[in-house]
Amino acid sequence: MLFEKEARRTEDIRHAEIVAKEFGFKTETVDITPTLESFYRSAPIFDPTDKLSKGNVKARTRMIYLYYYANRLHFIVCGSSDKSETMMGYFTKWGDVAADISPIMDLYKTQVRKLAQYIGIPAEIVEKPSSPALWPGQFAENELGIKYEQLDLILFGLERFMRTEEIAVQLRMEKHLIDEVKHRWLAAEHKRRMLLTAKLEYRTVGADFRLQRNPL
Amino acid sequence: MLFEKEARRTEDIRHAEIVAKEFGFKTETVDITPTLESFYRSAPIFDPTDKLSKGNVKARTRMIYLYYYANRLHFIVCGSSDKSETMMGYFTKWGDVAADISPIMDLYKTQVRKLAQYIGIPAEIVEKPSSPALWPGQFAENELGIKYEQLDLILFGLERFMRTEEIAVQLRMEKHLIDEVKHRWLAAEHKRRMLLTAKLEYRTVGADFRLQRNPL
Repeated sequence: MLFEKEARRTEDIRHAEIVAKEFGFKTETVDITPTLESFYRSAPIFDPTDKLSKGNVKARTRMIYLYYYANRLHFIVCGSSDKSETMMGYFTKWGDVAADISPIMDLYKTQVRKLAQYIGIPAEIVEKPSSPALWPGQFAENELGIKYEQLDLILFGLERFMRTEEIAVQLRMEKHLIDEVKHRWLAAEHKRRMLLTAKLEYRTVGADFRLQRNPL
Repeated sequence: MLFEKEARRTEDIRHAEIVAKEFGFKTETVDITPTLESFYRSAPIFDPTDKLSKGNVKARTRMIYLYYYANRLHFIVCGSSDKSETMMGYFTKWGDVAADISPIMDLYKTQVRKLAQYIGIPAEIVEKPSSPALWPGQFAENELGIKYEQLDLILFGLERFMRTEEIAVQLRMEKHLIDEVKHRWLAAEHKRRMLLTAKLEYRTVGADFRLQRNPL
């Protein structure tokens, strides 16, 4: 469990404890506030009013703590991103998606909620509004400008490469809404990939140097 | 330019200034030491004798600073990894390789040195031994256990999927040396990829959800 003062909600800590107890996870509470504050003080161009840039620092700092534990204890880091967030690019590059495995990345948010209900997660956790908890009062649906129930249906159509018009007709939604989601999905493709490398030689990492995922 | 006290070498700063002046780069010197020290103090399991885990924290913290500048100034982050390091997995996952573009990732270290010489980088910089500068006295060739002149020839053969025996004969090297390099190259494949996602639905990010790199 990783928290920092500014966006900390005691409710979230209580919910994490409920889930950990139910499934037998060991937990550790680490306050990452001093590290963030050192960062803010040491970066000459730091601007506290730029919430997004500051939020990215938080997401990446959480990753560093998780990987420190993984390194020291010989664990791997398990990501918790879902398909709705990942397709929308609603995450920090090299932050919350930077993990070793990601078991629920292929399930939309609405599917994750159904799965959570099915395996016995209490309703107050399943139904609570999603938040990256990077600043107080931050909620995913407000920032995305759409409810997950609607968004996931649009993404389901885009996943099948359906035309915008077709999705709009089938879902009885305005075409511009589908277009906006589609644009955001495609514009974020660079966040779902490794960095862009210039091809200069015979086989190029990140381009055409093909190996199996576990080649040993 | 990003430095922290422990591994800081005034020579490196001077070299960076020479290159920046020659090519007209703006520079900024940021001391990341306080942020690192806050991290060390706040992680309950921190162990200063575990140099590798600590070094990974440094590489990832440098990345956070670079991305903070990129966010605030609307820049992209340029990676400086070469093909020798990348194939050997001689880098920190989500650390030094976490960038937006990587212009020299397809050139072996020996090629990067030749290119540097050709474009007029002073010899004292071109010829200086590589170091990730994560702790004092850390040098790449010591850690890799092989000179780049030898390593790059082995990697050149592996890039062409040549057999170990064939590389050993052509380079007049011991077969076990080729095998060690090959093992290290293949074992690091997970560091050159996005995280492993479970395939559960129709098209899966990181598996078979194929888009162009710039789909817009």
